Amino acid sequence: MPFQNYSFINRRHTFVGDFAHMALAKFLKNGIQGYSKVFVLTDRNTKKYCLPWLMNHFRLPDEIILVEMEAGELHKTLETCRVIWRELAQTGADRKSLLVCIGGGVVCDLGGFVASAYMRGIACIYLPTSLLAQIDASVGGKTGVDLDGLKNYIGAYSKPKKIFIFPEFLKTLPFEHLLSGFGELVKHALIEGHEEWGRLKNSFANIESLKNFPHWQELIAHSVELKHKIVSLDPRETGSRKVLNLGHTVGHALETYSLRYDKKPLLHGHAIAIGIMVELQLSDQAIDYENSLVREITQYLMTFFPKYSLRSDQVEALIDLMFFDKKNHRDQLNMTLLRDIGQPVINCHCSVTEVIHAIHKCPAINTNAAG
Amino acid sequence: MPFQNYSFINRRHTFVGDFAHMALAKFLKNGIQGYSKVFVLTDRNTKKYCLPWLMNHFRLPDEIILVEMEAGELHKTLETCRVIWRELAQTGADRKSLLVCIGGGVVCDLGGFVASAYMRGIACIYLPTSLLAQIDASVGGKTGVDLDGLKNYIGAYSKPKKIFIFPEFLKTLPFEHLLSGFGELVKHALIEGHEEWGRLKNSFANIESLKNFPHWQELIAHSVELKHKIVSLDPRETGSRKVLNLGHTVGHALETYSLRYDKKPLLHGHAIAIGIMVELQLSDQAIDYENSLVREITQYLMTFFPKYSLRSDQVEALIDLMFFDKKNHRDQLNMTLLRDIGQPVINCHCSVTEVIHAIHKCPAINTNAAG
Repeated sequence: MPFQNYSFINRRHTFVGDFAHMALAKFLKNGIQGYSKVFVLTDRNTKKYCLPWLMNHFRLPDEIILVEMEAGELHKTLETCRVIWRELAQTGADRKSLLVCIGGGVVCDLGGFVASAYMRGIACIYLPTSLLAQIDASVGGKTGVDLDGLKNYIGAYSKPKKIFIFPEFLKTLPFEHLLSGFGELVKHALIEGHEEWGRLKNSFANIESLKNFPHWQELIAHSVELKHKIVSLDPRETGSRKVLNLGHTVGHALETYSLRYDKKPLLHGHAIAIGIMVELQLSDQAIDYENSLVREITQYLMTFFPKYSLRSDQVEALIDLMFFDKKNHRDQLNMTLLRDIGQPVINCHCSVTEVIHAIHKCPAINTNAAG
Repeated sequence: MPFQNYSFINRRHTFVGDFAHMALAKFLKNGIQGYSKVFVLTDRNTKKYCLPWLMNHFRLPDEIILVEMEAGELHKTLETCRVIWRELAQTGADRKSLLVCIGGGVVCDLGGFVASAYMRGIACIYLPTSLLAQIDASVGGKTGVDLDGLKNYIGAYSKPKKIFIFPEFLKTLPFEHLLSGFGELVKHALIEGHEEWGRLKNSFANIESLKNFPHWQELIAHSVELKHKIVSLDPRETGSRKVLNLGHTVGHALETYSLRYDKKPLLHGHAIAIGIMVELQLSDQAIDYENSLVREITQYLMTFFPKYSLRSDQVEALIDLMFFDKKNHRDQLNMTLLRDIGQPVINCHCSVTEVIHAIHKCPAINTNAAG
């Protein structure tokens, strides 16, 4: 087995796989009675594909109140929050109610914010269902929604009471969503070091191996453990937590751009994968990153992620969006770059010219697309 | 002088009167440079009446960005937040920006929430301009907006970096707003004890004395100090802080009702004053409150606050709204009542019949109004 056998991440908070089974059963037996009412937030997909599995495997309380939201990043908005807040108020949610979020990054990010602000904060637990949510979005206490497509502009630092992670849900995912989570998984390995990077490449040689991977429980536990470690040192992202932003300055801008203009928008992890490739070019230009490694990582990522086509007259629009990234202030582009695998460098300032150059040089972006 | 000469409430956080003058001057000289941009939130009234006074008395930074919202409780909504969030994003507010809220309870409550959720939290300071905001709303870290008229349903616990309180602003207030703040002042005295209650009655014998009171600095400092003490013991209102809810279960329902149906809605403190009078009737019924004190306090409050007319077929609608009060859960009406002046009792459960009886018995509500 290529990964350490992590049993659980945190004895009282985050549980993966077998341990999530035990912990959730225990919580449903002993913990849930402390809440006045239980609300379950799903999207259309998780209601259809994940909720029945849960009902088959666990004894849920008789009187849960289902709240359903539209699926997809386009619905991660204040308007959706308002609809849910109204529903909570109208169905009698009070300060001692519990909100259970069953879904991917959108449901967990939005549901966490909804819970944090309803009556100034009610309890909430996550059952993340996508790979992205399981290894990334559900961990670290960031919640939020987009504002006119600007990523996570409105939100709160607020932790769920518990996180139960079931790799079984990954089987319900369309492949492109599995791939999206893989983008963040690659990022974690690049941040962690050469050993982890080697292990990842051995485990996932190609798309087929991603579809048939047998060790999700261990891999997810390992990835969550890494994120927990980083976040616990800097929960409010004033410094070291920024290493997690690798690929995100460019990636968030790409995601916002694609949400606005593409019929089938890029998924988050796909945008981040391309973001990583652009920021590797910048690392090569700005901080003497080993050029052969840029090629190796880019080649590996391109085995999985399709190219993105961007009209060359749209590159500036993309740069404009980067300036809206929350990491930036006083009109500087602030990036997390890589000095080496396992050596992320935070607070790198890049000029617009450098970024434009990197975008054109990145083989994952096709800037020759017709206007 | 009837009140102790408090110099400041908290050496680094809340400043009143002369001390606010010194502290704000110092902050503008040394503190404000640490922020990337400064945004000033006002409503139409405080922009017209308070901002010029500030500009006359202080050297504000050259490049402040003004953000204006509509005045009044009806605009304390998510929609207003969204408008302000957009404006912040479009004018380049980043994580290191500062939001300065100049206004009454609505501006401070809403502005505090806007700041707490923008990019998951930017710094904010309050310059409360109404008596209500100076002694109550600005103190204690509660922020929030209404949801379909339901009071403060959406919000966060989030403290401003500093609070500067200038009694000079009270001169700009319409009398009914001064009166509204007086409602919370009476509540504070009733919670504090007989000595404070006597002092209040001596200071304010009638409406004229309220208009011409010469010792606002001391009185505000004293009232803020009391609230600080109560809040610091229970910041998240799990127990003892609930004493501050005296008058609020009935008062919030009245306020919501009035916002929905009256052309000229009750102001918050007016609704609370009537709420106190109804809850005194309940105290008399439910926990053997001294009947002569009910009469004394009611008579005193009615010297200041006009009666409220409610059609008797609307009493039930009012009760329904009480069940939406955030303090209630599991369908119980949870009240803070008075055992004696200075002896508030939290978590008193009252039946609907008792509350209806108290409403009809309260001389401040005219339930004989024509349908």
